[in-house]
Amino acid sequence: MAGDREQKVTPWEARAAEGAAKIDFDKLIRQFGSLRIDQQLLSRIETLTGKPPHHFLRRGIFFSHRDVHTILDSYEKKKPFFLYTGRGPSSEAMHLGHLVPFLFTKYLQDVFDVPLVIQMTDDEKFLWKDLQLEEAHRLAHENAKDIIACGFDPKKTFIFSDLDYMSSCPNFYRNVLRIQKCVTVNQAKGIFGFVDTDCIGKIGFPAVQAAPAFSTSFPSIFAESKEIGCLIPCAIDQDPYFRMTRDVAPRLGFPKPALLHSVFFPALQGSQSKMSSSDPSSSIFLTDTPKQIKQKVLKYAFSGGRDTMEEHRRYGGNPDVDVSYQYLTFFLEDDNRLAQIEQDYRSGKMLTGELKKELVSVLQDLIGQHRERRKAITDDILREFMTPYHHDFYH
Amino acid sequence: MAGDREQKVTPWEARAAEGAAKIDFDKLIRQFGSLRIDQQLLSRIETLTGKPPHHFLRRGIFFSHRDVHTILDSYEKKKPFFLYTGRGPSSEAMHLGHLVPFLFTKYLQDVFDVPLVIQMTDDEKFLWKDLQLEEAHRLAHENAKDIIACGFDPKKTFIFSDLDYMSSCPNFYRNVLRIQKCVTVNQAKGIFGFVDTDCIGKIGFPAVQAAPAFSTSFPSIFAESKEIGCLIPCAIDQDPYFRMTRDVAPRLGFPKPALLHSVFFPALQGSQSKMSSSDPSSSIFLTDTPKQIKQKVLKYAFSGGRDTMEEHRRYGGNPDVDVSYQYLTFFLEDDNRLAQIEQDYRSGKMLTGELKKELVSVLQDLIGQHRERRKAITDDILREFMTPYHHDFYH
Repeated sequence: MAGDREQKVTPWEARAAEGAAKIDFDKLIRQFGSLRIDQQLLSRIETLTGKPPHHFLRRGIFFSHRDVHTILDSYEKKKPFFLYTGRGPSSEAMHLGHLVPFLFTKYLQDVFDVPLVIQMTDDEKFLWKDLQLEEAHRLAHENAKDIIACGFDPKKTFIFSDLDYMSSCPNFYRNVLRIQKCVTVNQAKGIFGFVDTDCIGKIGFPAVQAAPAFSTSFPSIFAESKEIGCLIPCAIDQDPYFRMTRDVAPRLGFPKPALLHSVFFPALQGSQSKMSSSDPSSSIFLTDTPKQIKQKVLKYAFSGGRDTMEEHRRYGGNPDVDVSYQYLTFFLEDDNRLAQIEQDYRSGKMLTGELKKELVSVLQDLIGQHRERRKAITDDILREFMTPYHHDFYH
Repeated sequence: MAGDREQKVTPWEARAAEGAAKIDFDKLIRQFGSLRIDQQLLSRIETLTGKPPHHFLRRGIFFSHRDVHTILDSYEKKKPFFLYTGRGPSSEAMHLGHLVPFLFTKYLQDVFDVPLVIQMTDDEKFLWKDLQLEEAHRLAHENAKDIIACGFDPKKTFIFSDLDYMSSCPNFYRNVLRIQKCVTVNQAKGIFGFVDTDCIGKIGFPAVQAAPAFSTSFPSIFAESKEIGCLIPCAIDQDPYFRMTRDVAPRLGFPKPALLHSVFFPALQGSQSKMSSSDPSSSIFLTDTPKQIKQKVLKYAFSGGRDTMEEHRRYGGNPDVDVSYQYLTFFLEDDNRLAQIEQDYRSGKMLTGELKKELVSVLQDLIGQHRERRKAITDDILREFMTPYHHDFYH
């Protein structure tokens, strides 16, 4: 039967319901039991930081949260918290969608001036993919350079590969074990959909992604304090890991981590699925040349325009499903220009070709600047970010 | 129904069938698919080592094996192999039964002059028992002193706590992951009897016990060589771990580890179960005083003697079920004396009290000497054994 395949969102898969033009993020909020980011939260962030909220917040790209008010309460009382995000290094080249959480995390680090830990789950990618350990480990280091190129503060940012950190920090393995003791196979199956044909490494892995939410996993940064709150910006498909983490946190004497959830970055083909490295025609990579960017946008970006210019002028385009317009909401920072484009496209004044041209220019700039910054990331800089540092921010 | 409860042997439980006087080790050989240690193997060991086989071998205490001929083939060709054994540190005091694999391993190290690694599974005990991590870690170090007191060569022996080694040796976590990727939840359930109410830590743990059978888990000892054979002396209840290890070994490019299996050391109450730290009345501890040893043997050791002295003199005792006699087969090294005792007890010439007195004297000596050696194990000596060493035996 057509149309009866339901929307499915897990850390490994994201697709809209059959026949739907978009993933239904409101449904995810209800299903996961998180809270919508509302005007009141935005105003509070603006008041506390003294700056307008990031356009990802203003435009609903980060749209859902858990317990962010608790973190802001701490911040108001000058109590410490830290940021935690991560990446599964499954491919050499990162794509535009991968940038989203890091650009946002950089904003959070800038406005709150807090320590940040970034986990590279090379162990996860080895377990899930047809990938050798040494290759996953290499990709973790390659991807870390792209992450550093987003502009993080080397004095307050620790990037670690699980393979490296598990075998260098005693507290990390200990926290993984503590979490693994609190979660049954039944619970892991319920949360992640594991089955008995999965390998035993997968079943235990969620504890590895949970552990960095607990400050004692980073003794050099937070000494032995268990009281330090954690705020995790991530795409909403990672929520299952942190629902589990929040469930075990009080039993282990840690605060529950707070979360900020983003929507997915759509595939070039449309918002029914997210951009995926394993499908190059769906993705624009941070390594793409200006020419490749132009070709991909012109060839693949799903258009909300009309079939003929005449119809388009008469009835207007639909920016809500137009991928080029959606991408501009992520990367065109100028609110006025974006509003103008939306209006012109919807009215039919702007054609799909003109809209795409606008996007190509924005992306060529963004990726070109990223490429320049990425080139400057030497192995020494990488080593600086990947060496556990001693942080005296709170001491 | 009486008598229909079958024998059960897992790494966590060992009991005879209902109504049976002993655990049926022949049945385990058939069930596990291992080989009985026969006269031909004993002769070959004697020829190769130039010494009579250890009395544990001569008396069938180590009774079963896998692939030991392959290890001996290597040894004949002057190809390297190493020994691997371990202990789960769940209690402060080790008991007599815990000594058995270590006394035998010391013999193997002496006659073959090979490196030895000893795993202290403090992570396992944390996952399985009501025990804090730091306490399991402390017990690992306490127990390691008892193990060192068995007389191992510090230049060829590395003792490690999983908690320490996982967070210091990159290759160890990597090999654990490689193994975890090869074993499904279905397989782990089949081998170990795990259920979905078990915690996710337990499901993944078997890979941690498997990893030390692979030489690359010890880069400082074996460099990066994958070709070095491994011989594991252990009680037969540990076989499930190594059946799994042998199954994955060829897929990861390692030789299958060889095994030497011992029977269990019986509880004072009889050979239906094994000595257990959690039941103090079943056990004689290495910390027991001479007086406590005497009292426990007199009070608890199950006797194969007759109800009255008159009957005993007439019909004789049964050494096959007599725990004191069984213990002498483990710890009285003099073959002639042991044969004399068996003959005298079976004929009725020796009474239970006399037999027990003989055992008390042997155990008081054994444990007294152990206590003296244990006292001499300083923290510096412990550190020497627990620091990964560079071994140039084969280089």
